[in-house]
Amino acid sequence: MNYRFSSRVAQLKSSAVRDILKLTQGKDMISFAGGLPAEELFPVQAVREAADRVFAAGPSALQYGLTEGYLPLREQLCERMAAKQMIVNPEQMILTTGSQQAIDLLIGVLTEPGDTILVERPTYLASLQVFALHGLKVIAAESDEHGIIPEDAERLIREHRPKLLYAVPTFGNPTGRVWSVERRQKLLSLCKQNQMPIIEDDPYGDIKFDEKDQFPTLFSLDGQVEKGAVFYTSTFSKTVAPALRTGWAMGDSGVIRMVAKAKQAADLHSSTMDQQILSQLLSGFKLDDHIRLISKSYGERMLEMHNLLKQQALKDVTWVKPKGGMFLWLELPDGLDAEALLRCAVQKGVAFVPGSSFYAENPQRNTARLNYTYNTGARTEQGVARFVEALGEFTARS
Amino acid sequence: MNYRFSSRVAQLKSSAVRDILKLTQGKDMISFAGGLPAEELFPVQAVREAADRVFAAGPSALQYGLTEGYLPLREQLCERMAAKQMIVNPEQMILTTGSQQAIDLLIGVLTEPGDTILVERPTYLASLQVFALHGLKVIAAESDEHGIIPEDAERLIREHRPKLLYAVPTFGNPTGRVWSVERRQKLLSLCKQNQMPIIEDDPYGDIKFDEKDQFPTLFSLDGQVEKGAVFYTSTFSKTVAPALRTGWAMGDSGVIRMVAKAKQAADLHSSTMDQQILSQLLSGFKLDDHIRLISKSYGERMLEMHNLLKQQALKDVTWVKPKGGMFLWLELPDGLDAEALLRCAVQKGVAFVPGSSFYAENPQRNTARLNYTYNTGARTEQGVARFVEALGEFTARS
Repeated sequence: MNYRFSSRVAQLKSSAVRDILKLTQGKDMISFAGGLPAEELFPVQAVREAADRVFAAGPSALQYGLTEGYLPLREQLCERMAAKQMIVNPEQMILTTGSQQAIDLLIGVLTEPGDTILVERPTYLASLQVFALHGLKVIAAESDEHGIIPEDAERLIREHRPKLLYAVPTFGNPTGRVWSVERRQKLLSLCKQNQMPIIEDDPYGDIKFDEKDQFPTLFSLDGQVEKGAVFYTSTFSKTVAPALRTGWAMGDSGVIRMVAKAKQAADLHSSTMDQQILSQLLSGFKLDDHIRLISKSYGERMLEMHNLLKQQALKDVTWVKPKGGMFLWLELPDGLDAEALLRCAVQKGVAFVPGSSFYAENPQRNTARLNYTYNTGARTEQGVARFVEALGEFTARS
Repeated sequence: MNYRFSSRVAQLKSSAVRDILKLTQGKDMISFAGGLPAEELFPVQAVREAADRVFAAGPSALQYGLTEGYLPLREQLCERMAAKQMIVNPEQMILTTGSQQAIDLLIGVLTEPGDTILVERPTYLASLQVFALHGLKVIAAESDEHGIIPEDAERLIREHRPKLLYAVPTFGNPTGRVWSVERRQKLLSLCKQNQMPIIEDDPYGDIKFDEKDQFPTLFSLDGQVEKGAVFYTSTFSKTVAPALRTGWAMGDSGVIRMVAKAKQAADLHSSTMDQQILSQLLSGFKLDDHIRLISKSYGERMLEMHNLLKQQALKDVTWVKPKGGMFLWLELPDGLDAEALLRCAVQKGVAFVPGSSFYAENPQRNTARLNYTYNTGARTEQGVARFVEALGEFTARS
């Protein structure tokens, strides 16, 4: 039989990161590609004890759960959110399979195929995939080290009347940028004036290298949940462990109810095993101490990579030292195509993500995203050496 | 801010079953509504030991996984499928968040909004939700106790040129019907002649009350995986436990790759914690013995409910005694609206699903789906008594 595929799926590019992840499985490949947390820092023992408590609670732990997610975990999350000046109740929150699903469901609820949406340039590649699958037109506003540039966003809004704004204002993926408070305020009022909801994607906000840094979320700045402008998404993947695949979305309860309807069709509900484990974990384990510990370690790993690259005094290679998150965003010499560089680098045993994956259109090809959280020490050293070798060879060639 | 919702989501009815499940949580409500397995039969100890082995394997168990799912579990599943004459390799299989997600993703890959699809009348309500969300037009062929009626399917195919067939040929939801082998063969060749792929949804096939019964799947009858006509979906929710939310889809490897691309956008991957637990479970625990045990118990529970209803000699209430699965499908007196009956029944402390939920259009309102696997003994007795009381009162009123 010959199949006729959905045109949207057929035209979808597979995620470069995940394809590279697949290629590199089991080989002597040092990967700076995936956004992988450090395995040796996973709180395995605490998760194990939490799982034990779930099983001890008896067989009902293994039953079907609510589409909205395990209520005790939502209640605990509401407390955690309140500590960040985000005051929500469990009806304003839904648990999802990672924040990726939260984004997919919100987009499904808040847009129609053919709608236009506004993003920062560059932006998270797996969100770009969501937008493509939903048949959206993506327009991207320029950004600098203070975040999205309000004047450019304003111009695009005037010209294209986008339906909503998707943004990662704190430790953006791929750039690691943090929006200034002034920019946050400006974008928030711009979106409100134009009746544009905002999806604020915040998987990395907790991973900050200076504890004293405070970056108020757009959600907290808006301060209004019902009929509010901002829908906030986040995840336990970076702070506890990705395998537990638990993220969440929060905002206006009417929209969250719509998201739940869409989720019923998508998968009924996410793993309640994982949600119960996380709930048990939160009641015993000091998650904030753990987040401090991993943030400290990730800060050191970032410095390791930063220093190794700096020592090389690479010509026309620049980056901004990130204050948090998981990525170093390199601008490479003009005219260099990072996709070609990747093919060369992979042969030398190091992987990264070419920056072009993070652009909806007109990619800036001389860019690369390097993850610094997964490797450390000799691995990072060797990986950077291989990367620099590829870069040298490649620039010599091109 | 006022939101403009996606028209498809806005028009979507919430699942009656899940809404009832929500209503009934924590109340003295005997629920025959959800398709819930019996909690006391969950293999809690075996799952717990399996989880222990996952944690003992070290921190990498908590890392991100492949979109296609944990490879060892796919390999084990391929062996299990081979024992049912379904010969597939891991590239022809993807693990999903329950079989619900498998259906959603396959529909996303194999249809365009506006396409028509063919189903059996009545059919699984959560699949109808998927079709609505994907903007599909649904046409339903009549069925009897031997399954979908080929002549009616043929007529509809000729008139509407549907893109594919969705079916639950073994222990259908809601009817519990089993398609005869002859009907299976006829539908299969009909679909092949018309270049229509089939999604064969088989969550209940293992739950059969007579071990000797053999119902060959459409997938095995087709016998062809690459370029094959059939995509098969199933789940561990009924045979192990729903909280582990692990289902799968299998078929042509090119289509499975497309499904993986769509899944990358939808949620990157499902819980690898759950997938690893299941993999460990399958290597130690005798799952087939467990399936025999629950099937035996469910057969007894079905008989309990069947006999209780039979004793009442209810006027103009008929049903076919199921050979497996989880549901009793009642036809109630002509003119009785089971949705109104439900409101009355819930006040008496018993819930079920009105049959109208299972029709894409022109619902047969005098039908009801009763689950018999969740309750037993005095609970079933009391629930049936309440149901009969509501029915009596209601028919007296109407």
